[in-house]
Amino acid sequence: MSDARFARTPEPPYYAVVFTSQRTDGEQGHGATAERMVELARAREGFLGVESARDAEGLGITVSYWSSLEAIRAWKADTEHLDAQASGRRAWYERYEVRICRVERAYRFER
Amino acid sequence: MSDARFARTPEPPYYAVVFTSQRTDGEQGHGATAERMVELARAREGFLGVESARDAEGLGITVSYWSSLEAIRAWKADTEHLDAQASGRRAWYERYEVRICRVERAYRFER
Repeated sequence: MSDARFARTPEPPYYAVVFTSQRTDGEQGHGATAERMVELARAREGFLGVESARDAEGLGITVSYWSSLEAIRAWKADTEHLDAQASGRRAWYERYEVRICRVERAYRFER
Repeated sequence: MSDARFARTPEPPYYAVVFTSQRTDGEQGHGATAERMVELARAREGFLGVESARDAEGLGITVSYWSSLEAIRAWKADTEHLDAQASGRRAWYERYEVRICRVERAYRFER
């Protein structure tokens, strides 16, 4: 069911973290940690949802949604997440860009 | 060169449109129109860049970056883009969500 791939976010305003990344070659434990990070994020106060896609060339975009900048700050400083961020720089990513955004408006289409 | 997949955006603040979509089955001219839309967007005043990834299950995230909400409004109302939006609802997408955001902070990593 593809609906599970969409975040069920509330009416704006809320916040989004857009994480665009290019993977290096080789798995190196990336998948398991990525899943674990989603599991940890879901358990956090202020987490609203996440959407993620990575193509065959290893270019990925993950957008996580949060109720406040404070919730984003706290998640960035989570100990296990800090370890994952270090692994990301050491091994998993050729390059990445993180953008912290305030969602102002949203609309959707469903068949 | 994967660097071409990343948008070279300026220092925040600027704006982002996060377009999350689930494709229907079948090509139906989607790829050519998607490329044309990027070409048209690039030519517009206020366009800052675009990043896009679609996975094997047809879930895609495209983030376009803009200098102002006015530029986003004008692009949404572009005639050829309106035609593409109609085709999207008629044929290409099972579901989509559009979120208009103000980018507040950004940081990057490069190997």
